[in-house]
Amino acid sequence: MANVTADSADIAEEETEHMIENNFVVEAENVASSIDPKEMRAVILAGFGGLNKLRVTKKTMPEPQHGEVKIRVKACGLNFVDLMVRQGNIDSPPKPPLIPGFECSGIVESIGENTHGFEIGDRVMAFVCYNAWAEVVCTPVDYVYKMPDKMSFQEAAAFSLNYVAAYMMLFEVANLREGMSVLVHSAGGSVGQAVAQLCSSVPNVTVFGIASCSKHVAIRDSVTHIFDRNADYVQEVKKISPEGVDIVLDCLSGEHTGKGLALLKPLGAYVLYGASNMVTGETKSFFSIAKSWWQVEKVNPFKLYEENKVMAGFSLLNLLFKQGGGVRVKTVMDKLLSLYNQGRIKPVVDSLWALEEVKEAMQRIHDRGNVGKLILDIEKSPTPLMANDSTETSEAGEEEEDPEGDNDNKERMPFIQ
Amino acid sequence: MANVTADSADIAEEETEHMIENNFVVEAENVASSIDPKEMRAVILAGFGGLNKLRVTKKTMPEPQHGEVKIRVKACGLNFVDLMVRQGNIDSPPKPPLIPGFECSGIVESIGENTHGFEIGDRVMAFVCYNAWAEVVCTPVDYVYKMPDKMSFQEAAAFSLNYVAAYMMLFEVANLREGMSVLVHSAGGSVGQAVAQLCSSVPNVTVFGIASCSKHVAIRDSVTHIFDRNADYVQEVKKISPEGVDIVLDCLSGEHTGKGLALLKPLGAYVLYGASNMVTGETKSFFSIAKSWWQVEKVNPFKLYEENKVMAGFSLLNLLFKQGGGVRVKTVMDKLLSLYNQGRIKPVVDSLWALEEVKEAMQRIHDRGNVGKLILDIEKSPTPLMANDSTETSEAGEEEEDPEGDNDNKERMPFIQ
Repeated sequence: MANVTADSADIAEEETEHMIENNFVVEAENVASSIDPKEMRAVILAGFGGLNKLRVTKKTMPEPQHGEVKIRVKACGLNFVDLMVRQGNIDSPPKPPLIPGFECSGIVESIGENTHGFEIGDRVMAFVCYNAWAEVVCTPVDYVYKMPDKMSFQEAAAFSLNYVAAYMMLFEVANLREGMSVLVHSAGGSVGQAVAQLCSSVPNVTVFGIASCSKHVAIRDSVTHIFDRNADYVQEVKKISPEGVDIVLDCLSGEHTGKGLALLKPLGAYVLYGASNMVTGETKSFFSIAKSWWQVEKVNPFKLYEENKVMAGFSLLNLLFKQGGGVRVKTVMDKLLSLYNQGRIKPVVDSLWALEEVKEAMQRIHDRGNVGKLILDIEKSPTPLMANDSTETSEAGEEEEDPEGDNDNKERMPFIQ
Repeated sequence: MANVTADSADIAEEETEHMIENNFVVEAENVASSIDPKEMRAVILAGFGGLNKLRVTKKTMPEPQHGEVKIRVKACGLNFVDLMVRQGNIDSPPKPPLIPGFECSGIVESIGENTHGFEIGDRVMAFVCYNAWAEVVCTPVDYVYKMPDKMSFQEAAAFSLNYVAAYMMLFEVANLREGMSVLVHSAGGSVGQAVAQLCSSVPNVTVFGIASCSKHVAIRDSVTHIFDRNADYVQEVKKISPEGVDIVLDCLSGEHTGKGLALLKPLGAYVLYGASNMVTGETKSFFSIAKSWWQVEKVNPFKLYEENKVMAGFSLLNLLFKQGGGVRVKTVMDKLLSLYNQGRIKPVVDSLWALEEVKEAMQRIHDRGNVGKLILDIEKSPTPLMANDSTETSEAGEEEEDPEGDNDNKERMPFIQ
């Protein structure tokens, strides 16, 4: 029944939100009672758009192909890029329906032919090219990494994407060294917190963090200076460092690209690694978003020449899944696991969510309510409080206006620090 | 008399070339017999334009100001950027008449007030913000470096600009590491040769050099692969390395910017450090050149994001003289002098020229006839052969058409290897 519902929704996009919400609750109950060993629970994105395109349903369990590992998933990471996927606001999006999600942790359940390096029962974390938000995942062995003994599944699901991205941006793209300064947007987010921790592994690095005021208390120890995201941060940074900064890590884009370039010291590097400003209202047409995406101001190479500046882009997902970066990422992961084992980095988990709570979790990222990582915990049941809240939160999510600053319902969400 | 001549030329830009050439010869003879201790010989650029704007004249000798060192010059470096200065094809050019030249070597003759770290008689090399092509130069102490005992004045004049630029591009902008690959245009030029030597200081670095066929024999041992500058180097490189290269160093610009970006591996860096393609015919209007300079294709930051690429610009002169990079360059110079003392790098000197031969020297760079550095040797007298050639070479230089490939008169130029 769950599969049928998903297919119907894919065709009948004009269904009212109320009907979908009712279906969602019924569907979730049916799924919970499933015992078919060939099926698994998974989050499905029925089509590109708002939160109402997401549901939990049953899918046929995948089996590992040549060179793949099958993982019984324990926890999945939820990232801003998942919101962009949901809106279809990415380059060459796959055709829905699809299972979202790019990273998970769990236990190796079986191994494909000619697949070496892992054994059944290994605790692992993995990158997946979609399909992570499910009870079972298969992925090529090159994207699978053994977890340290002391690392929890929740930590592991919070580790791969954010720490690898932060490490590669700081050390392979921007060449962070002793005594430098780094400005990071969304300092309270999961990449921001990874950046702050990795910066503290290098002597005498100054971190300028930008975050909503509501997060300042929670993250003030992780950065050197902290600014409100609504403040004129260019002026604020220049008051402290008139020359500017050595590295700007920007996940927002738009006007922040020009501001970031302007803030660079000579030989400084601006790194664009996301475009969260492009995700606004939940139901905003993704065509209009795609348009604004490409309207970002272009940069003349001679301007960089005259000003001695570096402009870079970084997309870990493209590196992994389109550009064959698996071996390079493996080397980085080895370094990161060494830092983890030395106690120098530790993922900050914002909150755990059941698969059925994925809409509320997405809304929390969208509202920038999180400090650290949101985790989909496969074994968690939806809290009664969340089930009651479901419709209400999704309504907020359907508004055309950016609900930024509207934090009324955040306090009722369960989260751990 | 020499000063008067220069001023006259500044006003009377319509003077015929023949008249100027005659003046030049007479002037040079007068200068050679000068014994006034308050005057010095210097190359003067009377106005922006072709080779005929250059002459040797007498100027009042400068005295060191607070924080400056006065250097009795032995040798000066001649760089492609000097051709761009001559054409006025730089950002915010100073008003002519001016003495060109950005680097020299020599002996400390006196020291300004509150100037520490040097003594009279020290053998030094120095950066100068113009004014280098003269018998005496004053420059701030931050731009002066002691020469190693075994370094000749010619080597020193070939060292500063090119090795610092090559080092900073490779190690501070592009982050060269073991196993990487580097493509360098003008591999036979003085920066190209410095790049090749510095690459060989890192294990297992592949260097793809692009140079005129005439230089291939001379430089084939300095690079891993060598391509003709008129060949389709993108295809040639991809035959050897289908993935592309990690670093592209481009001093040409124009169409090579797009080609360079296209040749990058994921996380690769394209560095634009010059625009020698913008210097074509000797008398081409510098306004039309300035126009083509700005017509270079702009780059969308999202393209870099999706492709995982880095685009950088590097101008050592701007870093030094506009952006306060003196301390940073000093650190780099210390590392380079250490490499020099270990015998791991050694400047390649193409040829030595008298001040009076500056036009012929410029023509040689313009024709891309050099392998390594051209040096103005203050104590060298113009060779009789060169004096006879002067008019002839300058005529070639006045042609509207790019004389590329017209190497007829090169064989008669004196040069050392």
